[in-house]
Amino acid sequence: MRQGLEFVKMHGLGNDFVMIDGLARDVELASGEVERLCDRHFGIGADGVIVVRPSARPECAAYMHYVNADGTLAQMCGNGVRCFAKFLVDRGYVPAEDRRLTADTLAGPRPITFTVDGTGKMTRATVDMGRPVLDPAQVPVSAEPDATAPFGDPYAGALELDSPWGAFAFCCVSMGNPHAVCFLDGTGLDEFDVDAVGAFFESHPAFPEKTNVEFAVVGPHGIAMRVFERGCGETLACGTGACATAVAACLTGRAGRETDVLLRGGTLHVAWADDGHVMMTGPAAESFAGTVNV
Amino acid sequence: MRQGLEFVKMHGLGNDFVMIDGLARDVELASGEVERLCDRHFGIGADGVIVVRPSARPECAAYMHYVNADGTLAQMCGNGVRCFAKFLVDRGYVPAEDRRLTADTLAGPRPITFTVDGTGKMTRATVDMGRPVLDPAQVPVSAEPDATAPFGDPYAGALELDSPWGAFAFCCVSMGNPHAVCFLDGTGLDEFDVDAVGAFFESHPAFPEKTNVEFAVVGPHGIAMRVFERGCGETLACGTGACATAVAACLTGRAGRETDVLLRGGTLHVAWADDGHVMMTGPAAESFAGTVNV
Repeated sequence: MRQGLEFVKMHGLGNDFVMIDGLARDVELASGEVERLCDRHFGIGADGVIVVRPSARPECAAYMHYVNADGTLAQMCGNGVRCFAKFLVDRGYVPAEDRRLTADTLAGPRPITFTVDGTGKMTRATVDMGRPVLDPAQVPVSAEPDATAPFGDPYAGALELDSPWGAFAFCCVSMGNPHAVCFLDGTGLDEFDVDAVGAFFESHPAFPEKTNVEFAVVGPHGIAMRVFERGCGETLACGTGACATAVAACLTGRAGRETDVLLRGGTLHVAWADDGHVMMTGPAAESFAGTVNV
Repeated sequence: MRQGLEFVKMHGLGNDFVMIDGLARDVELASGEVERLCDRHFGIGADGVIVVRPSARPECAAYMHYVNADGTLAQMCGNGVRCFAKFLVDRGYVPAEDRRLTADTLAGPRPITFTVDGTGKMTRATVDMGRPVLDPAQVPVSAEPDATAPFGDPYAGALELDSPWGAFAFCCVSMGNPHAVCFLDGTGLDEFDVDAVGAFFESHPAFPEKTNVEFAVVGPHGIAMRVFERGCGETLACGTGACATAVAACLTGRAGRETDVLLRGGTLHVAWADDGHVMMTGPAAESFAGTVNV
């Protein structure tokens, strides 16, 4: 039992995190502590815990130690890294006038630019999410070689898979984690059974490491999208899923290189830059701050 | 948007509440504010908000203004009223050495006795939950008159109802709200499909105002019980459900007048006193305290 642990609760589009300051002093999380903190009835409740720690890399402002609610270590998280940036800016660890910082993560350094409000608090951040991987062997997708095409070529087409609900066509994109993006005809996204259909394809033999599954509808205001996260079920928002969907929409001629992705938890702006990097912009918000005994 | 609202997050067996001090100063909750506070991703996250307000009754320590997560007003809540007592004791509004207080609720005054730890913080409380109502017309149950019997008589037997999963026998008890208690043979409680079977009987025509549904197994350490709450689904704990189950177990000769009820969120001790009042004892805990902008 730890007494009086100070924390800040933040979220990016409802993807929520317990943020702990490990810069002012060392904070080690004991075994089982993250699960207790993230429990939504007995603890604070969150999708994960982010401890902000010193980085060994001189170009980085800090290191993002990110642990999922189930206690497993996470590499990177698009919504989490915006909260990480907001923590550094709002707490004065990065000057608001800098407008940029580099986050050190388990997946390597991530450059971030940000905007602030009149009081110097961070409101939005743009994160370099890296290049998408389209080579089927690397996504990975174990499907016919002509079903997908490598990055650089015109995207040859979709991977068609059968299901009890009929056939679905997927564009398969890795943003460090695998995504299978399906564009639905019509506008039945609200009624679509994401949990059932998503669970079916998450574990489909075509995806040897399983997959996140996105269902998207292109509309006048951007791409409406719902996501089934691997090992988790439907969530309010998935940053890498929004990037994969924007890339798939661009490759298949459904959108340009820049688009809004409208998720259940809010909207992300995704730009696929000429150098191949995917730049994701979205908000981060502080819900509350407190002191917990766990 | 309200800035800097101070709160304490408490729970009784995982049934969790945002507690707000309305004694030190007036706190009015705006429309939609409770829903935002109780949202588990964008807000603090809770089953309800309890504002501790002055009571007009001289014998009462304070008034429990309790609003459910969906914004509707609640009459009383066994787990919530223990948290309410803990708030008053731990914040010094009721002296720890008093060991008793009366809570004013929408359902009327509720006498409470409590125990404290070495630092004067409340650990457990005993709440007078009132007398059970067994008259079928008042529970209410619209069933054959010989299926249940009024309070005071030997409990004639159970109400048998058919379902796609076979026939189930229920003891029907109101603790201010209707409960249908089913004792399962054997020990298959962990695997039992509470959500499916509970939902079926919640809306069964035998229950004109619908019903909470309890599935219980009597064991050597007490009565293990899982609950499907009316309009809500399975929950970790239900104070009135634990009382109804203990009463049903006593009436049907499965337990004495005092028993432990083992819920998913923890254990409640229930004593059916000679004057007919049901006394429920259980813990209350503070998870964290903080400041929120909603």
